[in-house]
Amino acid sequence: MRVLIIGGAGMIGRKLAQRLAAEGRVGGRTIESMTLYDIVPAPPPAGAAFPVRVEIGDLPAPGEAARLLMAGPDIVFHLAAIVSGQAEQDFDLGYRINLDGTRAVLEAARTAGHRPRVIFASSLAAYGAPLPDPIGDDYLVAPLTSYGTQKAIGELLVSDYTRKGFVDGYALRLPTICVRPGKPNAAASGFFSAIIREPLAGQEAVLPVSEDVMHWHASPRAAVGFLLHAAALDGERVGPRRAFTLPGVAVTVGEQIAALRTIAGDKVAARIRRAPDPFVQRIIAGWPRRFDTKRARDLGFEAEKSFEEIIRVHIEDELGGGVPS
Amino acid sequence: MRVLIIGGAGMIGRKLAQRLAAEGRVGGRTIESMTLYDIVPAPPPAGAAFPVRVEIGDLPAPGEAARLLMAGPDIVFHLAAIVSGQAEQDFDLGYRINLDGTRAVLEAARTAGHRPRVIFASSLAAYGAPLPDPIGDDYLVAPLTSYGTQKAIGELLVSDYTRKGFVDGYALRLPTICVRPGKPNAAASGFFSAIIREPLAGQEAVLPVSEDVMHWHASPRAAVGFLLHAAALDGERVGPRRAFTLPGVAVTVGEQIAALRTIAGDKVAARIRRAPDPFVQRIIAGWPRRFDTKRARDLGFEAEKSFEEIIRVHIEDELGGGVPS
Repeated sequence: MRVLIIGGAGMIGRKLAQRLAAEGRVGGRTIESMTLYDIVPAPPPAGAAFPVRVEIGDLPAPGEAARLLMAGPDIVFHLAAIVSGQAEQDFDLGYRINLDGTRAVLEAARTAGHRPRVIFASSLAAYGAPLPDPIGDDYLVAPLTSYGTQKAIGELLVSDYTRKGFVDGYALRLPTICVRPGKPNAAASGFFSAIIREPLAGQEAVLPVSEDVMHWHASPRAAVGFLLHAAALDGERVGPRRAFTLPGVAVTVGEQIAALRTIAGDKVAARIRRAPDPFVQRIIAGWPRRFDTKRARDLGFEAEKSFEEIIRVHIEDELGGGVPS
Repeated sequence: MRVLIIGGAGMIGRKLAQRLAAEGRVGGRTIESMTLYDIVPAPPPAGAAFPVRVEIGDLPAPGEAARLLMAGPDIVFHLAAIVSGQAEQDFDLGYRINLDGTRAVLEAARTAGHRPRVIFASSLAAYGAPLPDPIGDDYLVAPLTSYGTQKAIGELLVSDYTRKGFVDGYALRLPTICVRPGKPNAAASGFFSAIIREPLAGQEAVLPVSEDVMHWHASPRAAVGFLLHAAALDGERVGPRRAFTLPGVAVTVGEQIAALRTIAGDKVAARIRRAPDPFVQRIIAGWPRRFDTKRARDLGFEAEKSFEEIIRVHIEDELGGGVPS
């Protein structure tokens, strides 16, 4: 299998590349080569038994996607995106990367003509309030951000290019990734990870919303697992609707904190400082809370079973397995 | 009001222009001028008390939409499209006109900067099987054709450009227009109109499906009424979801024929020849049957109340009011 990861320098892209290097196989077949593509150089994973090429470029630029697809990848993981906040601030950039970039990948695949599998990372941002609770597989996709609009359009394109036989496409609406490793960022959703990550690292974290806020989470490890599961799916079983929401753990912020306390103790959990922020609260109010992901579950996608499990994955994968105090 | 009709040479565009010429007003204000734009010259309506410009061009060509929007139209009716069958056969042309053309209109409106009202004709083809009966306003939009995909993307763009304040947009999913005047065409839906139009004109019509097939209809007059109603809507009442399905009449083919018999007699209704066509039957099986259009009804959109009324509208508007025998 020749593998192409577009967005290979991002958090999920790096973890996916590491996992593929460690396993040497994807979709039940041996990996022959892997290309990591991004706007900045992706770190090549250690220990790969196959050649890894690192390429940089501007995805929607003329000829760029064509060049990548003419190399004949069997599987394309398309993870590259301008994130929600930036796409909202820079309208042109968001449409250029998230819509034109995705369309360029699909068009290049069509032109290359070998019907690669294309696994596109979509987002819960495809949904916008008012929303039922839980949200079922056939509820209207009606985004309230430009980012969500661009992802929803990408989903429609993936289904149409698949129906026409140009690609074998899957648009996966990933849960919010928690615990996201690394530095705190400015995303409105950042606190969901920060209130776990920072206390475990001995730092204070700020909680800008009330503890009854519920959201839909899965670990970075589960996200990589979703991508690998999609790489091995039987497309005949999926049918023409190629976009679906993936399983996750629905918990309130209060339940997140209780899980942290169970695993790491009161002292760690006490590092969360309540500082209600009406701006963040307003944004969060329009977000989805939980889903009934029957389609994805029937196709064998699996997330963690509890938020405690999500915290344990973080401790294993990012903190060397030790529970700090 | 300065009015721009993109797709002014089409059946609905021509009827809309005639109605605007007759009324002299739209959205509660006097019409100052009207531009009819299409790939072929639109016939200017008779009796307009305002100047009418007829322009031809290729909508997605560079600078074309910008030129149209820089003229400062207050209302843009965007009706231009490559129809379903052709968009399915010519993938590039469908995406070029239906997606790139629509995006060009919205981008040009954003650049022009005067926030025009944009009324975009979408389609029931945005929906694909499996479908509930009836289909509610919050059911998933999951098209099964490239045309439907392009219309669904247009809907998402209209909502996003509206949310950002670039336009005041409305994406109207029109019912199947029945009775469509003119010659029979090759569209799979053509028989819904042909089985009424041809017998009334003394001609034989072929019915390729069984009489229990149900579909969602409104007259050309109702379609023009929808566009005019959207031109006068209060956007605040509509909210951020700017796409919705419009009211129609849900009838089976058998009920269509019964209505024809009631109005025009047995001799006319006997001109329908049954010739089941598995190809057409298969296409129709994935189509929507009927809708619960609560949102549109709450906003005051109105269609005919019965299929008999739809036939009477055809006789009044196309046959001079006389019932042939």
